[in-house]
Amino acid sequence: MTIHNTDILIIGAGPAGMVAAMTAVQHNPTKNITVIRSNEKSQVPCGIPYVFGATLGSVEKNAMICGGNPITDKIEKLIDSVEKVDIETKTVYSQNYEIHFDKLIFATGSIPFVHKNFTDALRLENVFTIDKDYSKVEKLKNYLADKQKVIVIGTGFIGVELATELASDNKDVTIIGGGHILAGSFDKDMAIKAEEIMIEKGVKLALGQHANHIVEKNNLAYGIELCDKTVIEADVIIFATGYEPNTKLAAEAGLKLARYNGIWVDEFMRTKNKDIFAVGDCSGRRDFITRDPSKVMLASTSAAEARVAGSSLYSIKRLKGFNGTIAIFSTMIGEKAFASAGVTQTRAKDEKIDYVSGYFEGMNRHPATIPDASKLSVKLIAMRESGRIIGGQVVGSKEAGEIINIIGLAIESELTLYSLVSMQVATQPLLTSAPTTYPIIMAAQIALSSK
Amino acid sequence: MTIHNTDILIIGAGPAGMVAAMTAVQHNPTKNITVIRSNEKSQVPCGIPYVFGATLGSVEKNAMICGGNPITDKIEKLIDSVEKVDIETKTVYSQNYEIHFDKLIFATGSIPFVHKNFTDALRLENVFTIDKDYSKVEKLKNYLADKQKVIVIGTGFIGVELATELASDNKDVTIIGGGHILAGSFDKDMAIKAEEIMIEKGVKLALGQHANHIVEKNNLAYGIELCDKTVIEADVIIFATGYEPNTKLAAEAGLKLARYNGIWVDEFMRTKNKDIFAVGDCSGRRDFITRDPSKVMLASTSAAEARVAGSSLYSIKRLKGFNGTIAIFSTMIGEKAFASAGVTQTRAKDEKIDYVSGYFEGMNRHPATIPDASKLSVKLIAMRESGRIIGGQVVGSKEAGEIINIIGLAIESELTLYSLVSMQVATQPLLTSAPTTYPIIMAAQIALSSK
Repeated sequence: MTIHNTDILIIGAGPAGMVAAMTAVQHNPTKNITVIRSNEKSQVPCGIPYVFGATLGSVEKNAMICGGNPITDKIEKLIDSVEKVDIETKTVYSQNYEIHFDKLIFATGSIPFVHKNFTDALRLENVFTIDKDYSKVEKLKNYLADKQKVIVIGTGFIGVELATELASDNKDVTIIGGGHILAGSFDKDMAIKAEEIMIEKGVKLALGQHANHIVEKNNLAYGIELCDKTVIEADVIIFATGYEPNTKLAAEAGLKLARYNGIWVDEFMRTKNKDIFAVGDCSGRRDFITRDPSKVMLASTSAAEARVAGSSLYSIKRLKGFNGTIAIFSTMIGEKAFASAGVTQTRAKDEKIDYVSGYFEGMNRHPATIPDASKLSVKLIAMRESGRIIGGQVVGSKEAGEIINIIGLAIESELTLYSLVSMQVATQPLLTSAPTTYPIIMAAQIALSSK
Repeated sequence: MTIHNTDILIIGAGPAGMVAAMTAVQHNPTKNITVIRSNEKSQVPCGIPYVFGATLGSVEKNAMICGGNPITDKIEKLIDSVEKVDIETKTVYSQNYEIHFDKLIFATGSIPFVHKNFTDALRLENVFTIDKDYSKVEKLKNYLADKQKVIVIGTGFIGVELATELASDNKDVTIIGGGHILAGSFDKDMAIKAEEIMIEKGVKLALGQHANHIVEKNNLAYGIELCDKTVIEADVIIFATGYEPNTKLAAEAGLKLARYNGIWVDEFMRTKNKDIFAVGDCSGRRDFITRDPSKVMLASTSAAEARVAGSSLYSIKRLKGFNGTIAIFSTMIGEKAFASAGVTQTRAKDEKIDYVSGYFEGMNRHPATIPDASKLSVKLIAMRESGRIIGGQVVGSKEAGEIINIIGLAIESELTLYSLVSMQVATQPLLTSAPTTYPIIMAAQIALSSK
């Protein structure tokens, strides 16, 4: 057992852990900073679906690079599994180290969630989850190499991206889900556009379905029986049914957990103990609009939390804490980008929010004769009375990935339709929509006219 | 002389005029709305450089479409030249009409500006300006068809775009300017990246140069003599030296002009007479940061002004007026997009603003092994004390055109580096930078660390 002393200790080296460590270096240049992680290599979490098809093509190409610059070089790295955290004595015990810290940041991430009816099936060789662990991704990749029929259970972002990528790689893929795909982020009108592309790419959609149970044969999964008793055969079954906070260590250490089992934190990512922080998927999240506990997991949100924690370790220096997740997502399905921020109309109804919405479909270039011009649709959702922006959805070519970040900033900055309707934007024939029909402005105008 | 009565009259049908008319329709469904314009056809202003090369290839492809939807169909259109505006009697006289109005919007646009030393040369058959008039664009296009050597004078957006487009079309092009290109929008470090691409595309750069005079021969321009006495020969000389407000009509009507000859307007685009408005390039503009009169001309800003005017004709209903131009631009040079908003470092120094800046160069996809990944650079400029964002520059692939709109919204919403450093963004391997190194956030962090 090696004794290791450090000022700041971070457990975990995913996006949250690494950004927390880097921010801590910048804000505390005189402190020792140590990151402890269980494996040498890690994966870019959102890149995982793309190692299974032609886009990245290998697990190696999705490796997360966490070194080689002046900031990361100031961080001490230990590769070991943490076994216990003693908050009282400020000590972390791993297999080979006894680490004394002054400030501790939990960045232990999340682990795949599988409904309890199916956890038993995970023992079968051909049943998988999408674990972010490097070696597990590699194992699934190798297993898939000579298999043809794949079932993906779950229609969230990972499930949809994985199914589409595998289909592009000529696998026979069926995706199973209870309703329209990406239902947390898109209303039906937008989701249907994505489903059409998936079908075009050869993905079989079994929507409005639930898996009853896995049919076994010779110690392998033979297929899945759906709630309508149909059996779909498969060589490989992959659960992409979400993730849950990895908080066993924190709970055993006596830290308070929030609903959905994230570690309870305040606006500055501090647990009930002001020397202990939690960031990323292991932290308890709230929703930006309602303040309700939230299950949303996003690397970008994790990074934002990590920046707040990294700059607040020894004292709160900045007024802005982390005011809840706005749930801001983007993805590519086929050649189209789909992006969403804040609440959908469906959720606004469920939450009994009195809202207005505006939908505009235009072109992403101007005039429409520009060679790469294509359709671009924007939906905005706002409070009826105040006009405050609470959600948006964008479908179009790749710039949709940044257009959603304009809407995200509007939500986070509590802007209203009144601001957006006369916002100043750069427009250029080869890059954007026309100045006369810029889609965020048009959607805002349409939403205002329905107030 | 036909008598025509209308509630709302708009003079001009460029982006400002058309958006003012459409907004007026939406806010005043019971009013008669008339637009009077001098020509049947008009051009998308920012598309003009692209009719001269392969991108659009024809003037026809750059036609501005202003009809065929339920809103534009409610607008009455007259094609005629306006000759006089009588504010006292609320009458506009054109060649064939006497038009009585209740509310009037000037949207008379801008006309090419050429330094007085060179106006005489415009009589020569092979000396041109970039006029937005449809027939004049067509005339230049036809004239260029069998010519080889072209000189473009002026290194603003139109000059740079035109020179690059003509070079891509295998013309022998020289561009002449006093300093680095696009100097109003980019600092030297960013401008150099653009100049390198122009040189690669075959454009000859004569920078740090001024034209002394045009050398004539046989009633044609033979070339240009520069301040160092070199003579550059040319088949065609094009002045792209900016535009000036087209306000002869307004001045003759007795309306007050602002500095730089735009029509003086208040925050709601009203002239001193509350029934007469002016929008677009013919209106007097102010700078968002300093409130100084501004020469910036942008179709997107014109559209924003037009939306404010169109909704404020009969009463001011919304608090937000038009708070000055933030000067937000984007363009493509070769395969790279260049975008800018607010003040540059150069201008910040000139204006004696105590600023900090942060520059970050990263990748636009993550991991960097994603097939279409390329470099993306962001610079942010902010007030040193408060951290308030006052400028930004972006160089990268096409999404830079929307990334600048995030920065623009931050400037217009008076956000600070503190907000941007923990902003929530959507990140996705195929669409954006990594969550850990999102370039706006990184640039904000770097700027903060230099405070």
